[in-house]
Amino acid sequence: MARHADSAIEPVAAIARYLQESGGKRLRPALHLLAAKFCGYEGRSSVQLGAVLELIHTATLLHDDVIDAADTRRGQASSNLRWGSSMTVLAGDWLYMESFRMALAERNFRILDVLIGLTQSMVEGELLQLTRLGRVVDEGEALDIARRKTACLFAASMQLAAILTGKSAADEERLAAYGLNLGLAFQVVDDLLDFTASPERLGKPVVSDLREGKVTLPLVFALDETPTAREKVQTVLAEKGFSSVKPEEIVALVRESGAIERTRARGSELVAAALGALEPFPDSVFKRALEAIPQFVLLRDY
Amino acid sequence: MARHADSAIEPVAAIARYLQESGGKRLRPALHLLAAKFCGYEGRSSVQLGAVLELIHTATLLHDDVIDAADTRRGQASSNLRWGSSMTVLAGDWLYMESFRMALAERNFRILDVLIGLTQSMVEGELLQLTRLGRVVDEGEALDIARRKTACLFAASMQLAAILTGKSAADEERLAAYGLNLGLAFQVVDDLLDFTASPERLGKPVVSDLREGKVTLPLVFALDETPTAREKVQTVLAEKGFSSVKPEEIVALVRESGAIERTRARGSELVAAALGALEPFPDSVFKRALEAIPQFVLLRDY
Repeated sequence: MARHADSAIEPVAAIARYLQESGGKRLRPALHLLAAKFCGYEGRSSVQLGAVLELIHTATLLHDDVIDAADTRRGQASSNLRWGSSMTVLAGDWLYMESFRMALAERNFRILDVLIGLTQSMVEGELLQLTRLGRVVDEGEALDIARRKTACLFAASMQLAAILTGKSAADEERLAAYGLNLGLAFQVVDDLLDFTASPERLGKPVVSDLREGKVTLPLVFALDETPTAREKVQTVLAEKGFSSVKPEEIVALVRESGAIERTRARGSELVAAALGALEPFPDSVFKRALEAIPQFVLLRDY
Repeated sequence: MARHADSAIEPVAAIARYLQESGGKRLRPALHLLAAKFCGYEGRSSVQLGAVLELIHTATLLHDDVIDAADTRRGQASSNLRWGSSMTVLAGDWLYMESFRMALAERNFRILDVLIGLTQSMVEGELLQLTRLGRVVDEGEALDIARRKTACLFAASMQLAAILTGKSAADEERLAAYGLNLGLAFQVVDDLLDFTASPERLGKPVVSDLREGKVTLPLVFALDETPTAREKVQTVLAEKGFSSVKPEEIVALVRESGAIERTRARGSELVAAALGALEPFPDSVFKRALEAIPQFVLLRDY
C-alpha cells in the first residue's frame, strides 16, 4: 500500500500517507489474507489484492467525507478539511484507478468483475444513503444501505480468495456469504457504537449519524417501540443538529426502548449466518480463526 | 450510451440523461468508430467502446465541474448546480464504474490497460491543473496538462481500434500519436476560442479560463511578448474575477501581442504531426476522413 500510494503525484501521495498513518483496523486486507490461507493459497497475489481492497476502501472514505462534509476521520482532521474537497475528490479518483491498475496486473477477469461490481455497488449505497438523508428509513432500507456500503467489500475480500484458488462456485458463494453477513454484523455494531461508545474511543462525538441526517438500525428499532419519539427525531433531522433536542435524549430513547438489545440480537443472527456458511468446510487452524472473527466484531467497543 | 445510463439508479440516470441531451460533439466515439473502420474492423465491440470513451469523458466532466464549481456546461446549468456537488461526485464515480464494467465485458486485458491508464492520467491532469491554479505557468506545463486532460483520450480512441484489430505495436503507436497530436491541437484551439469566440457560440462567457485561475497557452505566449502585462494578469488571478481589470483588456493584450497567431501556428504544427503519423498507412476512404479531421479541429469556432 505504501509503495503504491508513494507512486502518486502530490498531493495524492500526501493524502494517502496521511490516511495510512492514521491507522484504521485494516480489517479487509486481514480478512482477505486469512481467507487466502484458508483456501490453501501460497502465492503473492493475495498481498496485492489485500492492498487493492484497502485502497478501494480508502477511496470510498475520501468521497464519503466530501459528501458528508466530515470534519474528522479516525480522530483527526478529515482530508477534505485539510486539503479541500476538490483535492479529496481527485485523490479518491486516483486511488480507485490505482487499485484497478494493481488488480489488472493479476490478469484475471473474474477478479476485475468482482472489484468493479463491488465498487459500483458501494457508490450506489452512498447514493441511496444520500437520497434517504434527513428521513426516517425502515429496517429493510437501513440493511440495504449497509449491504452495499459495507458488507459487499467484506464479501469480496472472501470471494477473491476463492477465485485465486479456483474453488467451486458453491464454495465461492459460501465464502462470500460469510463475508456478507460478517460485514452486515460489523455495520450493525458500528451503528450501535454511535449510541453506546465514548467519544474518545469513537474518535468523533456520539449520535453523529443522526446529526448527519442518517437514521440507523438502533433508532429504527427505538421508533418501532416508542412511536411518540418520532417527533423528537424529526426535530433533530429538521434542525440538522442538537439545538432543541440534546444528544443525551436520543441516547436515552434508544436505551429505554430496548433497541440496544434488539440491535445486538440482529447482530448475533447475522453472525450465526456467517458461521453457518463456513460449516461445510473441513476443520483447520484457519477455519477456527475465521470462526473467531465474528465474536471480535460483536464485542468491539470502537 | 442511453441504455447503460438508464440502467443507473436515480438520480444518476437523470444526470446522465441530462448531459446526453445537452449534446456535446461526440468527437471521441466518432473518432474511435472511424479508426475502427480504418483498421478494417467489422465487429460490434467498437460501438461498445465508443460509448465507454464518451462515458469516461462524461465522468471526468462531472468531477471537473464540481472542482471548478462551474455554473454552466454546454450552455445550460451544470449538473452540480442542479443536483448539488455530492450527487455529482457520485454520478461521476458511477459512470466510471459503469464504463469499466462495459469495457470488462470485452474480455481484453490490453483494452483495460489503456482505459485505466488513461483515466488515471486524466485525473492527474486535473490535479496538476488544480495545483497550478492562480499561477502563471509556462508552455511546457500548459501542454502537459492538455496532454493528460484531453489528448490522452483522443490517443486512446485511436489506440483501442488498433488493439481490437490486432495491429502491430508500431501501427498502434502511430495511431496513438495521431490521436495525441489531434487532441493537443483540439485543446490549443479550445484555449484560443476562450479569447476569440462569441459567448453565444461558447455557451459561457469569454476569458472564463483566466477567471477560473487557469493560464492557458495564448496567455502564456502573450506574456512572453508583453512581460509588462504580467501585473494585469496577476491582478485577475488574485481577485479571481474581473473587478479591476476588464476581460476586454485581456482579450486586447492577447490580440495585440500576436499570441493568437502564435497559438494557431502551434496548432498547425500539432496537426502536421498528427497527419505525419498517418503517412505510412495505405490510402483509403477512411484514411482520407482521418486526414480531414484536423482541419475541422483547427477551423472550428465553438
